[in-house]
Amino acid sequence: MHDPSLRILIEEWSEKAWKEYIPHISIDCVVFGFHNSSLKVLLLKIKDQEVWGLPGGYMGKQEAINDAASRILKERTGARDIYLQQFRVFTDLNRSEGFFEEYDNTLWHKQRFISVGFYALVNYIDVVPVTDPFSDTCEWVDIDSIPEMMMDHRAIFDKALITLRKELNYKPIGDKLLQDKFTMPELQKLYEIILGKKLNRGNFYRKMIGYDILDKQDESRKGGAHKSPNLYKFNPEKYTAALKDGFKEGW
Amino acid sequence: MHDPSLRILIEEWSEKAWKEYIPHISIDCVVFGFHNSSLKVLLLKIKDQEVWGLPGGYMGKQEAINDAASRILKERTGARDIYLQQFRVFTDLNRSEGFFEEYDNTLWHKQRFISVGFYALVNYIDVVPVTDPFSDTCEWVDIDSIPEMMMDHRAIFDKALITLRKELNYKPIGDKLLQDKFTMPELQKLYEIILGKKLNRGNFYRKMIGYDILDKQDESRKGGAHKSPNLYKFNPEKYTAALKDGFKEGW
Repeated sequence: MHDPSLRILIEEWSEKAWKEYIPHISIDCVVFGFHNSSLKVLLLKIKDQEVWGLPGGYMGKQEAINDAASRILKERTGARDIYLQQFRVFTDLNRSEGFFEEYDNTLWHKQRFISVGFYALVNYIDVVPVTDPFSDTCEWVDIDSIPEMMMDHRAIFDKALITLRKELNYKPIGDKLLQDKFTMPELQKLYEIILGKKLNRGNFYRKMIGYDILDKQDESRKGGAHKSPNLYKFNPEKYTAALKDGFKEGW
Repeated sequence: MHDPSLRILIEEWSEKAWKEYIPHISIDCVVFGFHNSSLKVLLLKIKDQEVWGLPGGYMGKQEAINDAASRILKERTGARDIYLQQFRVFTDLNRSEGFFEEYDNTLWHKQRFISVGFYALVNYIDVVPVTDPFSDTCEWVDIDSIPEMMMDHRAIFDKALITLRKELNYKPIGDKLLQDKFTMPELQKLYEIILGKKLNRGNFYRKMIGYDILDKQDESRKGGAHKSPNLYKFNPEKYTAALKDGFKEGW
């Protein structure tokens, strides 16, 4: 059972939602960030329950769905102009309705919802996670240590990751997740995590240089024990042009 | 203005729809078939108007969305177990509402709808196109000769074709569109149409043989003026296994 004060909050929220949003359609966002050589996802810990959820919300009656997703993410992350892509609709019967069994049938959340999944790629350092009224905390979690998730949110996350894998050759995934300047090992690590496999260092280097989408910088990364590795930036024009047709080689 | 009898039909249908279906969510299907070396799409000519539309419909209150799409396609094509993939949600404000301006605001169709796009791959010879109550005709149209389309249906079609292009290495597109046995030139033609470009014959042959997903048949295609070309079939186990990780080479 929910705490009475949370219950009142949810019921009040439901009344407002019927007036403002389009029923039966929700939005769930899988927000990826890359930090310290690991890929992370932004999760909320639900109040009164030992489960976590993806940041999400609803679409205003006169709101474009991408605007709605941007608004939701701005509230959770503070970041504007987040790179967003819808990737799938999640429609199972009873995917969400059962989560609110103890409430009246007129409750907004108890209706059947189909959810439009978005993935978002953010620059980790731009984000300040902000909790929402139904959650205890909002934080980055390593994709290898994802806790128990509410409803079908685990399946939504899994599908988002598979989508990144398939779209590596078509979307500016590296550019959106890495810092402005990065080393070749950092880029390789990101690719390895998304692809879920180790890549040969020499082959990776040759392919990346062969694509002619990187500008080598005059500076190198300082501070390591070993030889300072070179820094690179994506060349925006060449990267965009190359993505347009997709890279011709697999990994 | 719609013909009065069509108007009554639409208004009666609207009343029924509010009872049976989930509002605000529609389904549009881009059905592809391959015949006589050309890729075709199944379209309906709307009654009283010089525009065409994709086969579509709505999701029952307790119906899974894939079941709804299958039901809609079975009605239009007579075919069961059609290969279906959802590929995108279409959500623009006023994408469909404006189409029914002359009707009362309570009309089902005049609400804001977001549409889940499915593409379907069918074996051309299995399909017998059947019109619906709102259309004059339902027929196969070559993808190079698509007529004016209603609402955002042209954009839905375009996106479906781009999706096929991207998924050629991941989905059994050749197998679903070609006859059981096919020649290498037929397979190459299908790839060329989907990719929107000519492919080198020798390279295509080498890649396809290299993938080890085809079984060469003992028979060859009879009746042509030239040397009878060999017939092939997809090897189901090898094709499925190869698609799982995606083919490593681009086109």
